[in-house]
Amino acid sequence: MASDQSSMTDSFEGMATAWIESSTAVSKNMAQMYSNIAAANRELWSQTMAPADSPSRESGDDSIAYSKSSWTTVQSVDTVAELEVGDEVVFRKELTDSDVHAFANISGDTNRLHLDDEFASDTRFGRRIVHGTLASGLISSALARLPGMIVYLSQDLDFERPVDIGTTVEATVRVAETLDGDRYRLDTTVQTEDGTTVIDGEAIVLIDTPPAPETDADADASTTE
Amino acid sequence: MASDQSSMTDSFEGMATAWIESSTAVSKNMAQMYSNIAAANRELWSQTMAPADSPSRESGDDSIAYSKSSWTTVQSVDTVAELEVGDEVVFRKELTDSDVHAFANISGDTNRLHLDDEFASDTRFGRRIVHGTLASGLISSALARLPGMIVYLSQDLDFERPVDIGTTVEATVRVAETLDGDRYRLDTTVQTEDGTTVIDGEAIVLIDTPPAPETDADADASTTE
Repeated sequence: MASDQSSMTDSFEGMATAWIESSTAVSKNMAQMYSNIAAANRELWSQTMAPADSPSRESGDDSIAYSKSSWTTVQSVDTVAELEVGDEVVFRKELTDSDVHAFANISGDTNRLHLDDEFASDTRFGRRIVHGTLASGLISSALARLPGMIVYLSQDLDFERPVDIGTTVEATVRVAETLDGDRYRLDTTVQTEDGTTVIDGEAIVLIDTPPAPETDADADASTTE
Repeated sequence: MASDQSSMTDSFEGMATAWIESSTAVSKNMAQMYSNIAAANRELWSQTMAPADSPSRESGDDSIAYSKSSWTTVQSVDTVAELEVGDEVVFRKELTDSDVHAFANISGDTNRLHLDDEFASDTRFGRRIVHGTLASGLISSALARLPGMIVYLSQDLDFERPVDIGTTVEATVRVAETLDGDRYRLDTTVQTEDGTTVIDGEAIVLIDTPPAPETDADADASTTE
């Protein structure tokens, strides 16, 4: 792993130094960047660890590590054996400004359309919008909540409308066809809460049997089935 | 914006409280989560603000807000007027463990295949792998570095091989066809450094004239053209 092992204190000092050194050259962009990163960092901690939105294990699916109380999942089916055409999972989440800044940092997609209000105001959209790929990530999040261990084989995406920052969107994945080799074709859409489709497309996934649950999970399962 | 306005100190206190309250119930998952988030947070600061990898404006393209010294971009063309079939942009970046955890948090895709070593060791991959959607984000990052203001219209993706965490991958977008309405069809691939294709597909983009640069950018342009 190439991660820098410097302490948080060192990072703050390095940040302050970098901030001062660069302030004359690119002060405006760095100022925006600084406040963006600070806000993203603050929200990362508060979103993740605040008692009202603590991550927790989802009870029904051992393939999911954790969820948050502000995320919504609706599943029509619980086991791979029962999965058939028409079954679906809906996953709903807000796409926040800090999500957009974090995505720019992890993907390298620093398109100013997503990060710079002044630049974005002069584009055809007239405002900053969410990265299409970030919004499409909710499709993968919904797929992951199908029963079994999901392997993503392909995805076609039509980006039909821009997604405003701060919008709650929901991804729906619906089994359209069962294919050979434990594969399934699914219709995949992302919609805003008023039902407007922002992304349309389809996915092919392979569904493996999930690894055997651990002992305590086994005990849980024996009481519910 | 739905962001929590609590101070960093409050977040740390809230985190400590949540940590203690939940430790008996789901201690193992929370412990992994806690260390993951702490590591991701540390790296977010150090990656973004360390002097060796300070973000900076890319000189050649006003549609990009900033870049980092560890990111590599190679462009065959500088202006929309010159853009033709065969032109390409290559964008290269490491996909780190903290990138994977950050993507899980912002997309909601907490598939244990990406987050849980023990779970992943029993899957067909035998190890944790990078989210396909995160790796595909580098295609969007490369597209954003084409000249002009890029609007993402569609993307087809075949996830051909898993991407190991900590791998440096490069996305290549190459103009395959010019279409009417300022649209272009591009071949899009993501490869590891040894040339193995991990994602293959194609994109359709619309390229608008970028907003007029600001006054200081105008001055820069006049000295270089």
